[in-house]
Amino acid sequence: MDSETNSIDQPLVFKRILLTVDVDDQDSTAKAFRFAVTQAKVNQASLGIVSVMESDDLSVFDSLTPAKVDEKRDALHEVVNDYINHAQADGVVDVKGYVAEDGDVDDIIVEDVIPRFNPDLIVCGADSNPERRGHKAAISVQLSKKAPVSVIVVR
Amino acid sequence: MDSETNSIDQPLVFKRILLTVDVDDQDSTAKAFRFAVTQAKVNQASLGIVSVMESDDLSVFDSLTPAKVDEKRDALHEVVNDYINHAQADGVVDVKGYVAEDGDVDDIIVEDVIPRFNPDLIVCGADSNPERRGHKAAISVQLSKKAPVSVIVVR
Repeated sequence: MDSETNSIDQPLVFKRILLTVDVDDQDSTAKAFRFAVTQAKVNQASLGIVSVMESDDLSVFDSLTPAKVDEKRDALHEVVNDYINHAQADGVVDVKGYVAEDGDVDDIIVEDVIPRFNPDLIVCGADSNPERRGHKAAISVQLSKKAPVSVIVVR
Repeated sequence: MDSETNSIDQPLVFKRILLTVDVDDQDSTAKAFRFAVTQAKVNQASLGIVSVMESDDLSVFDSLTPAKVDEKRDALHEVVNDYINHAQADGVVDVKGYVAEDGDVDDIIVEDVIPRFNPDLIVCGADSNPERRGHKAAISVQLSKKAPVSVIVVR
């Protein structure tokens, strides 16, 4: 709860929106992106777009290979840049990208990305294929639980 | 994920918004209400307002006293009606209220209220005093996890 007036007659709009991108679940991410951009345009808000390199995306051996890590990092940058370009083409003026790594996705977002971007809303996709990837739903739910700001899980 | 087109160039707006009211946490509820009404007005959406009588709001002995149950139920109706009146005064045309009971709040909302109102977005407050009431945060987080539609926890 922030310190602004909380009179129920006041509108509540978000001005700094952070979208979390899951490069392995583009359907869910696309839907979350649509909501984030729609809100950013209506509210003339700043948009942050973050993707986190998941520790378990790399096998134990791969993670010891700098070239493999670089390759994965480059792929993340490319996806984030692609979403930035789409958001700008859609009319969002203030867009920033973040690529983070080394740790649990939800912890990195809470401890590293939130303090840097200072969002008032986090927008997450929900896994569209829970049988294949059980932990993505858990990340959005973990953010709903842990983040100090509002969180929406878009389904 | 619904069956509509998910092209990232399409806006995503919610048209049936369900607000969960916690009568014992009016600060959190007020902030969630402000977001729900702001969205409903911008999107010309339908607004549902639900409050659930929590099983543990009544002691074992009280729960055996029909007069006590009626009193609690009346109080919930009054709070929901109050929010309905505010929403209508704020310009939301289509507003419906629900008071439910008998069970866990998150299960009642998922199994009973969602099928009746058919929301595409659920708006929950977050507990503003977690030391006093640890389980409200859990309800919004449980909804983020279990609900088949989008869920926002407003902080």
